[in-house]
Amino acid sequence: MIESAAIIGLGLIGGSLARDLAARGVRVAALDRNVRNVQMARLDGVVQNFVDWDDNTPIQADVVILAVPVLAARKLLRDVTGRTHRVRLITDVGSTKRSIVRAAEGLEIATQFVGSHPLAGDHRSGWEASRTGLFQGARVYLSPSRFADADALELARELWTMVGAVPEVMDAAEHDRRLAWTSHLPQAASIALARALAEAGIARFDLGPGGRDVTRLAGSSPEMWADILADNADEVSAALASMGTHLSAIRDAVAGGDRDRLRELWAAANQWHQESP
Amino acid sequence: MIESAAIIGLGLIGGSLARDLAARGVRVAALDRNVRNVQMARLDGVVQNFVDWDDNTPIQADVVILAVPVLAARKLLRDVTGRTHRVRLITDVGSTKRSIVRAAEGLEIATQFVGSHPLAGDHRSGWEASRTGLFQGARVYLSPSRFADADALELARELWTMVGAVPEVMDAAEHDRRLAWTSHLPQAASIALARALAEAGIARFDLGPGGRDVTRLAGSSPEMWADILADNADEVSAALASMGTHLSAIRDAVAGGDRDRLRELWAAANQWHQESP
Repeated sequence: MIESAAIIGLGLIGGSLARDLAARGVRVAALDRNVRNVQMARLDGVVQNFVDWDDNTPIQADVVILAVPVLAARKLLRDVTGRTHRVRLITDVGSTKRSIVRAAEGLEIATQFVGSHPLAGDHRSGWEASRTGLFQGARVYLSPSRFADADALELARELWTMVGAVPEVMDAAEHDRRLAWTSHLPQAASIALARALAEAGIARFDLGPGGRDVTRLAGSSPEMWADILADNADEVSAALASMGTHLSAIRDAVAGGDRDRLRELWAAANQWHQESP
Repeated sequence: MIESAAIIGLGLIGGSLARDLAARGVRVAALDRNVRNVQMARLDGVVQNFVDWDDNTPIQADVVILAVPVLAARKLLRDVTGRTHRVRLITDVGSTKRSIVRAAEGLEIATQFVGSHPLAGDHRSGWEASRTGLFQGARVYLSPSRFADADALELARELWTMVGAVPEVMDAAEHDRRLAWTSHLPQAASIALARALAEAGIARFDLGPGGRDVTRLAGSSPEMWADILADNADEVSAALASMGTHLSAIRDAVAGGDRDRLRELWAAANQWHQESP
């Protein structure tokens, strides 16, 4: 049973998690680099206390959730060490899992750490964007430290199930390979398209509904994404190279007026699309 | 006043136009390579007659609308010549305008031709996908033949205004340059991404909501798009080259772990996105 949680970072993910946990009777303490976010969360009755990060007091919570960008989470992981005797689970919510799981495995908290990656949220960010029900039906990948004890993994499942998410345990390396394709590549493709359009003097307003869909992710947070992509550089580079090749193949067919080849490429993409329209 | 229309092709665009025109009291005759579509449209009370295409009878309609893929429309344009004494406007609905306008300018129908391109529809196609109200609020580009008389242009405006669209006259060359960026490039980007994902063994089902947005256009019609891209090859090649360059820039920054550069690229895309979120 999770009775208390300390959430570091009250952005879209941390804030939404705080709302859902509080609604289910969990005592939530929080910390955010923007103090106003914690104050707003207290006024909303979501958060009861501030988490003291700078002193050496042991953290009094069943679960510690690091809901900050990937590289910041790794730093916080080192800071928290030595203050977590009472904590049963330490987790994060980052979009990459190899580096943080590896970092945890080298620390005292290795037995308590199970990384999390909820597939929820959108291009908005901050406490203002947080809301109840964000995780309802969402998949969440769990990547345990290889030294994690059974209680920590059990608690991670419980945490996410409580807020309506569907946990799936996945090795951190497999997670990062997979996400390079399912998430990081679409994000980068949307940005590359936005940059090309901006350079050509085309406003987003000029696009039809299709073009707006393809560029929707261009509104995503620079700080968050710089961290994610740099942290998953090898896998993301490979995915970007593949997309570049497929883009060139289309360009060759277009330049050559090769309608048969274009039809083939579109038909193959259609088939892929139809498996899950 | 438009009292009668002959629509060739009862797909998503032609079918929806037929529905809206019939609802406003216009007598609609139609033709489709799939006879069943015309029969269904008659049963639905949308279409009153078949258009006879093969004999040499003059076409009895105020307006002839060629709602077929780009290259087929060009061919039909030649076929229709000599049978349109009574017709006041001949138009199409294709996504490229240079080639069809040029073709019309070389024919007897040059005075009656005003090309149309409604920015409406989605990745679905066929009579089954057609519906009333599809053009409500949609922009429609009008590219007149340079010999078009004022009556033809006036009727083209009337036609689209009747179904709720917002006409904007644009030179065919400018139209094709613009659409290469606003429509053809996003379409090709979505296909390239879909092909890369398929090759990596990733199903569309595995994507989050962002990835699903970026790949939504991968369900678009191969036949229609092969025509469009081949017909606008020079402009589309240039747009694809630009996107390839921006994709490579991201890859370089990722491979080099250059977070500052990644933040810059994302921030620039953010700014573009925020002008019309």
